[in-house]
Amino acid sequence: MVREVITSKDNTRIKNLRKLHKRKERSRTGMFLIDGEHLVEEAVAAGQRIHYLIAEADYTFTFDASDFEVVYVSAPVLKSLSQLEAPQGVMAALTYVPPEVSGDKVLVLDDVQDPGNLGSLIRTADAFGFDRVVVSRGTVDPFSDKVLRSAQGSTFHISIEVADAGGAIREFDGMTIGTSLRDAEFLDEVPQPDRLLVVLGNEGRGVSGELLGFVDRTVKIHMPGRSESLNVAIAGGILMHHFKS
Amino acid sequence: MVREVITSKDNTRIKNLRKLHKRKERSRTGMFLIDGEHLVEEAVAAGQRIHYLIAEADYTFTFDASDFEVVYVSAPVLKSLSQLEAPQGVMAALTYVPPEVSGDKVLVLDDVQDPGNLGSLIRTADAFGFDRVVVSRGTVDPFSDKVLRSAQGSTFHISIEVADAGGAIREFDGMTIGTSLRDAEFLDEVPQPDRLLVVLGNEGRGVSGELLGFVDRTVKIHMPGRSESLNVAIAGGILMHHFKS
Repeated sequence: MVREVITSKDNTRIKNLRKLHKRKERSRTGMFLIDGEHLVEEAVAAGQRIHYLIAEADYTFTFDASDFEVVYVSAPVLKSLSQLEAPQGVMAALTYVPPEVSGDKVLVLDDVQDPGNLGSLIRTADAFGFDRVVVSRGTVDPFSDKVLRSAQGSTFHISIEVADAGGAIREFDGMTIGTSLRDAEFLDEVPQPDRLLVVLGNEGRGVSGELLGFVDRTVKIHMPGRSESLNVAIAGGILMHHFKS
Repeated sequence: MVREVITSKDNTRIKNLRKLHKRKERSRTGMFLIDGEHLVEEAVAAGQRIHYLIAEADYTFTFDASDFEVVYVSAPVLKSLSQLEAPQGVMAALTYVPPEVSGDKVLVLDDVQDPGNLGSLIRTADAFGFDRVVVSRGTVDPFSDKVLRSAQGSTFHISIEVADAGGAIREFDGMTIGTSLRDAEFLDEVPQPDRLLVVLGNEGRGVSGELLGFVDRTVKIHMPGRSESLNVAIAGGILMHHFKS
């Protein structure tokens, strides 16, 4: 079989795919790119809606790719699409399909700005059974390259929604807690509820006063040392570990 | 008083300071740069050995700067030295002076590669009373710009050493633990010792087999969800929170 291989970076399809590095284009099309063998395998295993696989001409798939449309490209074309320093020969363009989840443990993120923090929080939520993550509209895009990379495939294990954080808190049927450095109970004193929603805030200002007004309890982590605060992903890790099933 | 203001980016002193962005030059001179009001204030408050303060001509110090040599520069020259997107008008060149610490709780890092992870671990160690951090020679430089920034001044509250990780473990007088995803006790089952050393590993491979051979116990964090592992800074946060004084 002779494979058609795209060798021009200016090919229309390639140009359109490259536009998906912009949030605006991801919103418009509902599509995003994933990069590298591990993420592509995770997306396929999770039954995500894959529009195309994109592969270097000599790439050998680690799974049965016969059900998918494969766009074969030259190494320089793949490099022009990839944001990895060392591209791994395979990418995919897909539309996110949130998996069915219990929603018993929910993480709500209020305007988290750093892609590494968001990716890490998604990965950690997945580790501790927080299977639904609601990110406010002011949060960095969970489908951007850096976030997907640091989430390491957990994006496809749990349900991620971009939505109004206040609405998610008010509608939740269970205990809701937010973090605050001020007036708050220490984490160790908070009981383990069956259904729990945890709100974490922006790196600079923490959880907004408005959202703190919606939660049942405000919680802080006891810090006997000298730092005044923790990185939001670390605080989230400690909280989710405490409330893990 | 007429201030002498350096307006040329090619000024020899400025060129030499700019070289401090390279690890090699930091090693050679024993000096490093810090950037922004908060870090400079923290370094001054901690009695660090400050060679010069570097300030824009119209910068007003938030502390008494009369004991320090101040190099005044134009805004473009400061921008040429700074790695911040929005420089804050002040930087400093200094030599690290580790503070006196108890050393009862020690964190050892085995070849951690990501600057954000290292900075976050230093900040978290400071929060939970781990007042000595030993980083292996293969770890990213704790005095690089990104690490200093994400450590948010904790660098000056605790003692940070670049040293042989194996030596630090073997010489420690107290309980030593390392993390492992395999053969390990669950964290919740490990008692609270008076003196404790925790070893965390490289993002890709975890703690090396050699170092695991030196520790008293290997520990893992219970993850009821689907992630196979945690980011090293998150794992470190959960461990140090568990063992906080």
